Amino acid sequence: MPRSDAGTRTTDVMLAIRNKIASRSLAPGDRLPSIRSFAATMGVSPTTVVEAYDRLAAEGLIRALRGSGFYVSTTALPPLKLAEAESPRARAVDPFWVSRQSLDSDDAVLKPGCGWLPSDWMPNDALRQAIRRLARADDNLLAYYGSTRGSLPLRRLLLARFAEEGIQATPDEVMLTSTGTQSLDLICRFLLRPGDTVMIDDPCYFNFQALLKAHQVKIIGVPYTPTGPDLTAFEALLNAERPRVYLTNSALHNPTGATLPPQTAHRLLNAAAQHEMIIIEDDIFADFEPEPSVRLAALDGLNRVIRIGSFSKTLSASIRCGYIAAQRDWIDGLVDLQVATNFGGPSPVATELITQVLAGGSYRKHMEELRRKLARARREVVDRLHRLGIEPWLLPRGGFYLWCRLPDRLDATHVAQAALAEGIVLAPGNVFSVSQGASDFMRFNVAHTLDPRIERTLAEVLRKAR
Amino acid sequence: MPRSDAGTRTTDVMLAIRNKIASRSLAPGDRLPSIRSFAATMGVSPTTVVEAYDRLAAEGLIRALRGSGFYVSTTALPPLKLAEAESPRARAVDPFWVSRQSLDSDDAVLKPGCGWLPSDWMPNDALRQAIRRLARADDNLLAYYGSTRGSLPLRRLLLARFAEEGIQATPDEVMLTSTGTQSLDLICRFLLRPGDTVMIDDPCYFNFQALLKAHQVKIIGVPYTPTGPDLTAFEALLNAERPRVYLTNSALHNPTGATLPPQTAHRLLNAAAQHEMIIIEDDIFADFEPEPSVRLAALDGLNRVIRIGSFSKTLSASIRCGYIAAQRDWIDGLVDLQVATNFGGPSPVATELITQVLAGGSYRKHMEELRRKLARARREVVDRLHRLGIEPWLLPRGGFYLWCRLPDRLDATHVAQAALAEGIVLAPGNVFSVSQGASDFMRFNVAHTLDPRIERTLAEVLRKAR
Repeated sequence: MPRSDAGTRTTDVMLAIRNKIASRSLAPGDRLPSIRSFAATMGVSPTTVVEAYDRLAAEGLIRALRGSGFYVSTTALPPLKLAEAESPRARAVDPFWVSRQSLDSDDAVLKPGCGWLPSDWMPNDALRQAIRRLARADDNLLAYYGSTRGSLPLRRLLLARFAEEGIQATPDEVMLTSTGTQSLDLICRFLLRPGDTVMIDDPCYFNFQALLKAHQVKIIGVPYTPTGPDLTAFEALLNAERPRVYLTNSALHNPTGATLPPQTAHRLLNAAAQHEMIIIEDDIFADFEPEPSVRLAALDGLNRVIRIGSFSKTLSASIRCGYIAAQRDWIDGLVDLQVATNFGGPSPVATELITQVLAGGSYRKHMEELRRKLARARREVVDRLHRLGIEPWLLPRGGFYLWCRLPDRLDATHVAQAALAEGIVLAPGNVFSVSQGASDFMRFNVAHTLDPRIERTLAEVLRKAR
Repeated sequence: MPRSDAGTRTTDVMLAIRNKIASRSLAPGDRLPSIRSFAATMGVSPTTVVEAYDRLAAEGLIRALRGSGFYVSTTALPPLKLAEAESPRARAVDPFWVSRQSLDSDDAVLKPGCGWLPSDWMPNDALRQAIRRLARADDNLLAYYGSTRGSLPLRRLLLARFAEEGIQATPDEVMLTSTGTQSLDLICRFLLRPGDTVMIDDPCYFNFQALLKAHQVKIIGVPYTPTGPDLTAFEALLNAERPRVYLTNSALHNPTGATLPPQTAHRLLNAAAQHEMIIIEDDIFADFEPEPSVRLAALDGLNRVIRIGSFSKTLSASIRCGYIAAQRDWIDGLVDLQVATNFGGPSPVATELITQVLAGGSYRKHMEELRRKLARARREVVDRLHRLGIEPWLLPRGGFYLWCRLPDRLDATHVAQAALAEGIVLAPGNVFSVSQGASDFMRFNVAHTLDPRIERTLAEVLRKAR
């Protein structure tokens, strides 16, 4: 039987029932015509009527009483107040502001402030191919929870990449998690207690602050320079505050795009060792580097450095999986914590799709093209922002962020609020700064800043703000 | 070009390189033949060589130096100690014991102690159909994080089901999460502080204890009877301990299979209101009931009851998504917490697949068949266990658990350890009991207890244990 005809017939039956309910010829609580009789009335097969009734029941318009047929729902659904429910609420410009605005605004809104690439820059062909293959996977992969550490083939792929960077690790020093953020969350739970002190870069990824606040720890910021954290301040803070953990990105730092030079990495590790501080290295932008730079985890050999990352920036943020590489005892404890708080590791279906894309031949080529594309976008966006008097703090070696200073010490929060009114989500400096010392900075995602409406609107917003 | 030939040619090139490395004609650090020259040598196209090199690079055997070709890895991967790394470690029989044994044991192990259905009992055909459709989804669905509350269509489907049970809720009173366990974890973070008191049923789902321990709260157990918690003890504990939260399953309680009668539900809610206690109702087994029973969330109207659930038991534990229904202010706070600790809601790809299966016509029929199949399995397993002197505490109305007493007060932990040595994972009573008062009980998953080897092995294990 041709699919489209069957589909049409099902829709016809659904429409007939909808009309009966709308015209009150079927009232709430009424029993629907029996499958057999309505099939005869409509001149379709009983299967078609069953399909139609089931769909209407899934919508909540009718309900199936087990063993006794279908009835019109007595409990009509309340009206959907979409706008009210779904639109990001007016709220203070804090770290959640950027998250909510960028995640919940609809597709018509432009998002130079967001933290991901446009969907058509992602390796969707390889992903679609992996999805088609997934439809033929065995039942166990589709149905079961999967192992507590996550897919072994994906952990092996990660180990191969770590080895390229000089990190020798074994499969039991790596675990997979649901998301990169969840990796960090598990580690915080494992290492920290309320009241502990954690050091972050100032500025740093805004969600670090939100996450650490959820752990009720004391947050201190170390000033970040174009060559990494200010080492004098770093060492002074270690002496004065004895932070238990330092959380950073060594390569393509978010939001600045800076990369840690080897000398800084070496000194920083020595200071950490002296003060028994643990370092969490979030390496989520690793694949965007033109050539790999030095990593704290590699210098340290996963002794006091824990490395985390995910595939959300390069592969898909919809099919999510994060990872943690750390010494084996810590991984054992983290696996227990993940079982307790998430029951098991990441989705086996997600890890299978990611493994297929990474192991396939096209991923490396895709990343090479992407790096070239981003280099062009960076140059183009630097030019356009320059015309507006907005200047980058440094020119990053890779990635998609530009950390920029606004002209005339304009307040980035005010600019972001004015831009939002024009349908543009920006990422104002102070959401990245624990000291609130970046009021005239703004983070731009170059891949989302190419739309010509952005330059025009920003020019107007800046003119009014002066 | 036919796929299989291309695949064979790629494999040939990979094998040729592997052999060169194994025979040391290519040593660590050596540059591989150029794409063009090796394509000529092998009589294949350059594309095939690129594909083969990329796959070898993904395996870690060779590495791509950006812009300069491929080299044999100098850092061979350490040997995979699979057995050591992957086998569940010998450890105390605590709540983690059952999780680790059931999640990490290989497929040859029989698992009457596990908490999920066999993969061929799941709606895999509908899932495969949804996966094939997913391959044609638009780029945004495949690439982006999705909204903070999760897919609106899936929330609407949930609202339709809630309405059938008499729960009137709006889309902003529902949020989707990564997993059912994560739903509970977010709520604990939102409501609890270390040192708070939480009441659970004794016995209850073993992971509740593990999760609450991660929150460093005081755990108290209320004795569970065939008609729900013992109300006298419940009220006495409320007076004496003033728990902030009570966590329970109202329908098809885990592990006992009991269902709360309306009178108990009503009294329990009144007592909770008097002591300003919040109730978390975990409704993960809802769809296994032959007819819906009364729900605390429905009586209470999402005032002090928070309802959680997931699709892991009926649809897939590999494609995971949980939900929370609660008053709107709480959902707002929980959404912020989920952004901070997970960056965004559940995987949009996962919620799309779940929506497709639930909205499709076949799901209701699948669940009806499943309930019949489980009823038969329950009868059969009750008979088999009876022959071993193992008797159910009650006969549940639905679901897949039987909570059973072992003969002669045998110690279930010892029996479980002995059974594990024979390749059978059991769930001994005390992992479910905060008071450790269920030492001669065992939870059986009837769907996994039909294998005839289980009766034989259990008979032997029990004989030796006497």
